[in-house]
Amino acid sequence: MALHTVLFDVAEKPVQVPTGTLLSEAARLAGVELNQPCGGQGRCGRCAVQITSGMVRRRSTLRLSPEDVALGYALACQSVVEGNVAVHVPPQERIERRLTTDRTVAAVHAPPGYDPHRDQSLQRVALTLPPPSMDDQTDDWNRVLRGLRQTLQRSDFRVSLPLLRRMGGILRENDWKVTAIVDAPRWECCPDCPCRLVDLLPGHVPDDAPLWGVAIDIGTTTVSLWLVDLISGRVRAQVAEYNRQIARGEDVISRIIYASKNNGGEELRQLVLETINELVKRACTRARISPTDIHKATVAGNSTMMHLFLGVPANSIRLAPFVTVINEPPLITAEEAGLNIHPYASVDCLPGVASYVGADITAGVLASGMDDDERLTLFMDVGTNGETVLGCNEWLVTCACSAGPAFEGAGVFDGMRATKGAIEEVWIDGNTYEPTYRVIGDVKPRGICGSGLISLLAEMFITGVLDKGGHLHLGLNTPRLRLGAHGPEYVVAWADETEHGHDIVITHVDIDNLIRAKAAIYAGFTVLANSVGVPLDMVEQVLIGGSFGKYINVEKAIQIGLLPDMPWERFQFLGNTSVQGAYLALLDRAARTRVHDIAGRMTYIELSADNSFYEAFTSALFLPHTDLHKFPSVAEALVNGNEQRVRG
Amino acid sequence: MALHTVLFDVAEKPVQVPTGTLLSEAARLAGVELNQPCGGQGRCGRCAVQITSGMVRRRSTLRLSPEDVALGYALACQSVVEGNVAVHVPPQERIERRLTTDRTVAAVHAPPGYDPHRDQSLQRVALTLPPPSMDDQTDDWNRVLRGLRQTLQRSDFRVSLPLLRRMGGILRENDWKVTAIVDAPRWECCPDCPCRLVDLLPGHVPDDAPLWGVAIDIGTTTVSLWLVDLISGRVRAQVAEYNRQIARGEDVISRIIYASKNNGGEELRQLVLETINELVKRACTRARISPTDIHKATVAGNSTMMHLFLGVPANSIRLAPFVTVINEPPLITAEEAGLNIHPYASVDCLPGVASYVGADITAGVLASGMDDDERLTLFMDVGTNGETVLGCNEWLVTCACSAGPAFEGAGVFDGMRATKGAIEEVWIDGNTYEPTYRVIGDVKPRGICGSGLISLLAEMFITGVLDKGGHLHLGLNTPRLRLGAHGPEYVVAWADETEHGHDIVITHVDIDNLIRAKAAIYAGFTVLANSVGVPLDMVEQVLIGGSFGKYINVEKAIQIGLLPDMPWERFQFLGNTSVQGAYLALLDRAARTRVHDIAGRMTYIELSADNSFYEAFTSALFLPHTDLHKFPSVAEALVNGNEQRVRG
Repeated sequence: MALHTVLFDVAEKPVQVPTGTLLSEAARLAGVELNQPCGGQGRCGRCAVQITSGMVRRRSTLRLSPEDVALGYALACQSVVEGNVAVHVPPQERIERRLTTDRTVAAVHAPPGYDPHRDQSLQRVALTLPPPSMDDQTDDWNRVLRGLRQTLQRSDFRVSLPLLRRMGGILRENDWKVTAIVDAPRWECCPDCPCRLVDLLPGHVPDDAPLWGVAIDIGTTTVSLWLVDLISGRVRAQVAEYNRQIARGEDVISRIIYASKNNGGEELRQLVLETINELVKRACTRARISPTDIHKATVAGNSTMMHLFLGVPANSIRLAPFVTVINEPPLITAEEAGLNIHPYASVDCLPGVASYVGADITAGVLASGMDDDERLTLFMDVGTNGETVLGCNEWLVTCACSAGPAFEGAGVFDGMRATKGAIEEVWIDGNTYEPTYRVIGDVKPRGICGSGLISLLAEMFITGVLDKGGHLHLGLNTPRLRLGAHGPEYVVAWADETEHGHDIVITHVDIDNLIRAKAAIYAGFTVLANSVGVPLDMVEQVLIGGSFGKYINVEKAIQIGLLPDMPWERFQFLGNTSVQGAYLALLDRAARTRVHDIAGRMTYIELSADNSFYEAFTSALFLPHTDLHKFPSVAEALVNGNEQRVRG
Repeated sequence: MALHTVLFDVAEKPVQVPTGTLLSEAARLAGVELNQPCGGQGRCGRCAVQITSGMVRRRSTLRLSPEDVALGYALACQSVVEGNVAVHVPPQERIERRLTTDRTVAAVHAPPGYDPHRDQSLQRVALTLPPPSMDDQTDDWNRVLRGLRQTLQRSDFRVSLPLLRRMGGILRENDWKVTAIVDAPRWECCPDCPCRLVDLLPGHVPDDAPLWGVAIDIGTTTVSLWLVDLISGRVRAQVAEYNRQIARGEDVISRIIYASKNNGGEELRQLVLETINELVKRACTRARISPTDIHKATVAGNSTMMHLFLGVPANSIRLAPFVTVINEPPLITAEEAGLNIHPYASVDCLPGVASYVGADITAGVLASGMDDDERLTLFMDVGTNGETVLGCNEWLVTCACSAGPAFEGAGVFDGMRATKGAIEEVWIDGNTYEPTYRVIGDVKPRGICGSGLISLLAEMFITGVLDKGGHLHLGLNTPRLRLGAHGPEYVVAWADETEHGHDIVITHVDIDNLIRAKAAIYAGFTVLANSVGVPLDMVEQVLIGGSFGKYINVEKAIQIGLLPDMPWERFQFLGNTSVQGAYLALLDRAARTRVHDIAGRMTYIELSADNSFYEAFTSALFLPHTDLHKFPSVAEALVNGNEQRVRG
């Protein structure tokens, strides 16, 4: 048998191994310790290494993207030595980062060809006005108007009372040399549509000086804010913070209930305003500007968040027939909204479609570009409500399924939000059933967050801890499986490993809840696809938005049947598409028009009124699904897992 | 010589007198006491009686209108008995009322043909909306929109955030049966112009139920408010009150100065708001409605009052080159303005033309109808600034002359505003030089108001107390003329007749001030007429607006050269034309458009930049004028007066 030289860059010397040796075995021989939390089954991706010279045969590239493979990455536990190779072992942190966030690309640059003078609704106009004289006693406002009309090809301008109150002083103190900030309407753009004079600044501001705007995404859990220079299109600061409303309810339903009592609505409005205003301050500190330098804001968020932000009662969203008070809020000023930016800055709330398909989704569709793409695309934003959009440049259908808060860590015994101390990924050794986990913040765990639950569920299923009906195999030879106070359970972390000194477990009831949640989401896909008569496997790309999506491990989500079974390369994580869409709409008038059109074009399918939903839901109440033919890769993994366990 | 029987209805028995006897002499013989403060010179009109049978020959009908003459009125001191007559002697109060206010006719009825559905910008729309269902999950706002679009031929409607906050509740609590209050824009009226949803009321309001609006005139001295039912056009209440700003300065200049110091502007804004809000309350109490039932307001007032009302600094109005910050304020809501009516009612401030030709004048022109009249018309509003408009349906020129506050009682030693205790009319006996006066409120006098000063000046001039140069004839045989501490003076009331126990006098300096003031106003007419090349005597009607105008005695104003010398019937007192114009603009969209057009059409002539003004002013610094040919009736009166004095 031929021997090959394998040189790991972190090893002291090369090792000789015969053809067919796994790289992971070679590493062990070379004294290189590779992480293998899944027990060498090629599922966790933690043993990824980079082949810097020579070739290996990859038995599986699960957890590797085509780009990864092109860069020479291989999973050590799935790669067979067939010649001399040199191997780079990347630092573990880098692998983790790559696995969790690398695929998230935020569109932080202006779209190519962005021209602030053409595309931006907010314009800065340098005015040098002839001072009034006995021969020209035109009033101040008409003097400003004349200047604006000479520069901009618009005729009608509106001015607010507060600005009028300051106008005479600004003009005279600056010898009639001022810079006007003018906001053109949202998507109206004929020359006769009225523009709004937002402010007059002293003197002339240089043409390339920044003009500031903010894009805001009000998430139920997290509020994100981007501070943008509208001239260059550059994002100057990205900040995010928990929505302070969380203390009054973790999901939209409990917030609506809280808002409907006493002064709850106003309290929640103040809380989200505090959150945003704090973010504004933080971003401004970073950019060394004053909040009042911000002259425009665009806001996205789900319909409930939008109602609460505007102080509009959201009750009707919760109760059948589930309607909003308003899907497309009117343009208001920062002062009206309560935002601490320039008081007369426009606050443009993007339009939603329905009670559970809000502006976060229309903004998401805009950011995803699916409304302008010929390919059949599935866009989803997994959270309390799995909002899903199916379509292409010609049509769009959407639905929201009430998945419940399980994937947000609520309604699960040891569930928690994705914060410090949350187990966010789990690997189970297929032979010993021992888990390995990663904790957010690298501290002792306190519970399991959504992505950790998906990961855990998938691992338990693939390793046989759980059967397809969601039942725990108590008969397996491991102390991790036991009958607890709440019925059968699996111990993820023993008391001595945890922060609070209690075992962290997943119970049979938790598993049921999670399966119901994933079944609801998958049933949503099914109904959408059925509604337009398109089979799911014709979907050419699956775009996953939402900050939650950033952390989902796709193949594990497929393994539990949360995502449809498709090749890895069809999935794309887009990160927070809601704030990205808000950014694009903030920047580009045409993009703003597009969001409006997207909202108008989307056909909303109310699942609770759809007879086929219940059937699809029932069929999906299995791991991964009643019909395993729909999940060929999972079927294969199950076979492999069983084989390896047999071999092991 | 033939004898005739004269029967006075208040006399015990008839008297017999020969042909040619004055009625006043017959009255004396019959024991009837007639008031003759002017000493029987036919100037005061106080001896007016009504001939109920028979005929008299009227030597003069000064102080009588053609209508009066038609009704049989005659001045006893100017009427000669030529046959048997029966005479009715009206109660003195009725004569006074007729002399002072009878000719003031406020247009308190809607214009003929007024149709609230066609002419009114505020519309009430009864909506019966289909409730939302699982098949129709349209948001509340679009549901309302659908209803509005079906009823009104308009497509674009705007809604305010505060109304959105209440919308869901109102709709559901009233089973989707509501009444929308919709305000169409001011003078835009194409079907695409956005309308504004002002309010949603529970249930259906009957078609003929009142829809409330207020017309407001903010005068420097007095604020007037009319509460109007916009459906019938009927004025339900007319209330007026002193502008509380008076305590901070009596004229616009002192107000502007006060406003520019510390927080003076905001203080003045609050004071006028208090005044208006108090009037709103009073009018609403009278109509038994709530202030929030008022859904629309129209405001007129001079440019300074408008700026102070809006909280816009008025400094530039006072300083050369005298420009306003804004002539045509934007439409605002009552909440923005600070008016205590429905918070989202529109507050429509009518447009002005220049710093000293404000919305009170454009509204006045509208009320006068001169902009739609073929006749050459002179419209004037005498106050601190004599605003004057000359023109017809084809052109309008306007100017304002800084007459100073003399005619408002300021800058005159014993001058005061037209309040209780002010001498408002004076008659001087041509033989004894003894004055008779009327005091507002029938109390002891405290001073002399503007109309009293005009009257006094004219009487002094006609009776020879004063010469045409404005010098007092100290040589006349009366203790009323004397050298006082301030130079020559005439005593109008002795100390024992007055409230404060001091003599009330008019000094040489006062007379100078008054002559300068009247000269400025008359020079304004002259410049206006010259500017368009039209001789003043071609003016076919002189319309006098402003509450001040209500009390002016026309022939006395002519005698001092304040008004041009024309036949009595060409003069018309219109009362408060500013509030009348606001009322018309409140009621009728077309009238509102007309005010806008009037403001746009008026050519403003700045007198301080006009070379001919100084010349015209100098020529007018005489009583009545350097050129007595311009005042033929005065010339005649002077001859008569002299003759009568000689006869006497």
